[in-house]
Amino acid sequence: MTEAEGYMKEALAEAQKAFDAGEVPIGAVMVRNGEIIARGYNLRNTAKNPLCHAEMEIIHKAAGIVGDWRLEDCVLYVTVEPCPMCAGAIVQARIPKVVFGTRNNKAGCAGSILNILNEPRFNHQVLVEEGVLQEECSRLMRLFFRRFRKNNAPELTEE
Amino acid sequence: MTEAEGYMKEALAEAQKAFDAGEVPIGAVMVRNGEIIARGYNLRNTAKNPLCHAEMEIIHKAAGIVGDWRLEDCVLYVTVEPCPMCAGAIVQARIPKVVFGTRNNKAGCAGSILNILNEPRFNHQVLVEEGVLQEECSRLMRLFFRRFRKNNAPELTEE
Repeated sequence: MTEAEGYMKEALAEAQKAFDAGEVPIGAVMVRNGEIIARGYNLRNTAKNPLCHAEMEIIHKAAGIVGDWRLEDCVLYVTVEPCPMCAGAIVQARIPKVVFGTRNNKAGCAGSILNILNEPRFNHQVLVEEGVLQEECSRLMRLFFRRFRKNNAPELTEE
Repeated sequence: MTEAEGYMKEALAEAQKAFDAGEVPIGAVMVRNGEIIARGYNLRNTAKNPLCHAEMEIIHKAAGIVGDWRLEDCVLYVTVEPCPMCAGAIVQARIPKVVFGTRNNKAGCAGSILNILNEPRFNHQVLVEEGVLQEECSRLMRLFFRRFRKNNAPELTEE
């Protein structure tokens, strides 16, 4: 297992917690100097708060640990391609690198719909690596939405 | 004074609080059924948190008041065009309408750089009205950055 796959496995364990809570199963970890300093998962329905995506949770926690809004020596690992809000937050936090597992064809903003992480007119661009444990990350999402469609729970819309 | 100008004046009062705190002077209010239910201003440096933009503050507060992540009967007033993070959060929160004062030519995502608020491939599009009290909103920003450049404070970069 590569180092990136090791961190993505930790992000997947967070995504599983979201799955178990009935949330869209996305998880993330923040790595700084080879150490995981923050873990988080999507909690939008539980928290009744549109800001509570996995990436936002760990950016919030990491800023508290680093003691700065600039997370310039952090790498963010997330199981699914970030949405516009999370991609924008990554740019705001000046995070230099993002690793994600699987694409989000409905709202992904690391190239699928827009490319917020690499917009030359913004004051920060992000190095992106994709496809790490892609099959596992994608499988958990498929499993969730298959169950969701069966149960027809209208509050669980895809991001 | 129109109704929109009245709400924007309240957003400007919030922006002034940011100015007084040495923060990039952006303020916002959330209106629901004609009532202001949340007020907020940019606190990024004070909070040492990249998520603490004016719009994020009021989305967070409004979700707590409404008791849902969907703010479908709210109108967001903000003095400056939203950045990618805030524009993405507005889409996530399903806010139907945004009114802003002045454009942000460096990071604005209601048309200036990207148009996150009106991307047909996302699952939500936002009605946008711009230019309300434009001169006052722009003046406060100019005043701030003039002072900033004089004091050469490196932590106060434009959003």
